[in-house]
Amino acid sequence: MKLYDYLPSGNSYKVRLLLSYLGIDYTHVPIDIHKGETQTPAYLAMNPAGQIPLLQLGDGRTLAESNAILMFLAEDTPYCPVNHFDHAKVLQWMFWEQYRHEPAIAVARYISHYAPERKAELPALHEKGRAALAVMDAHLATTAFFAGSGPSAADISLYAYTHVADEGGFDLAEYPNVEAWCARMAEHPRHILITDIPA
Amino acid sequence: MKLYDYLPSGNSYKVRLLLSYLGIDYTHVPIDIHKGETQTPAYLAMNPAGQIPLLQLGDGRTLAESNAILMFLAEDTPYCPVNHFDHAKVLQWMFWEQYRHEPAIAVARYISHYAPERKAELPALHEKGRAALAVMDAHLATTAFFAGSGPSAADISLYAYTHVADEGGFDLAEYPNVEAWCARMAEHPRHILITDIPA
Repeated sequence: MKLYDYLPSGNSYKVRLLLSYLGIDYTHVPIDIHKGETQTPAYLAMNPAGQIPLLQLGDGRTLAESNAILMFLAEDTPYCPVNHFDHAKVLQWMFWEQYRHEPAIAVARYISHYAPERKAELPALHEKGRAALAVMDAHLATTAFFAGSGPSAADISLYAYTHVADEGGFDLAEYPNVEAWCARMAEHPRHILITDIPA
Repeated sequence: MKLYDYLPSGNSYKVRLLLSYLGIDYTHVPIDIHKGETQTPAYLAMNPAGQIPLLQLGDGRTLAESNAILMFLAEDTPYCPVNHFDHAKVLQWMFWEQYRHEPAIAVARYISHYAPERKAELPALHEKGRAALAVMDAHLATTAFFAGSGPSAADISLYAYTHVADEGGFDLAEYPNVEAWCARMAEHPRHILITDIPA
């Protein structure tokens, strides 16, 4: 399979991280989102939403949305609970990630790196992002991982932008349970960094 | 089971619609989001995100996020494809709904109904919402439903706010494939309206 991917993107990193955990070989196709490479007719034919990451199967079919790709890859592996309720809880946290977490924490990081002209948006994003981190911290006070008994696709999804939240102006030291969970995630024997370039 | 729910909410309607399709009896617990009823300590203990809808099982466990609730209820029914790739495509469209569709189309409707002081946000929301409707219209040019061969949880998810998009200032006549799909959705023998109060 091929992964169309932008290395600094946390949404892309989610997929690279799970592919590494699963030991799946894939072709890495770097896409530069700043050069309009997701907005070409050829790319939009593969993903009308014009976003990375995008997974392409051997038969040419494509799958978009980082969390949908995670669930596609995680099914029937230890990263997707078999229990029906735990499975739904994984999805609950992943939908929460895309609605409450990513639009604040990832966007603050994006603006800090690439869009200084949008820095007036940062105070509102920081308020929203801190609320999200507080929800995570409260949840992790009583559980080692977000759903089920070990790291799941939900943890991978939330880890991607949380562990680099400092790049958007958040201080994870204010969320000790989140910090400890980030450390647990990084202990995985097949862990990779967001900066690691796929072979 | 109990559904904590706000009748005009499209996110809540998604769940009521699927419960109706499936013929599942449930207790409807109306929550008034405008009176802070999702922000009480008792409610936040059930859902730290402070949102409706919320499904509570007979044993007291709770599940949040409308699309996670849909997938929990849809599994092993005709509304969730068995095929692994189609299943992932259902999730792709549901994550897209929460990231690209709901934050524009639902928020424009909310502002139009309840928050006139935020009307300066409408032009940007209309631009974003029209882009989302155009993606749906293009997809529906070649397929009757979003993923798989019949209506799935993805269609129910997207239908909820699309069919009332006019309340937020969108004109569905500009998207004939979307309009025809809305009509197909409403043909279901167990269809209910967003205004129908559960028994």
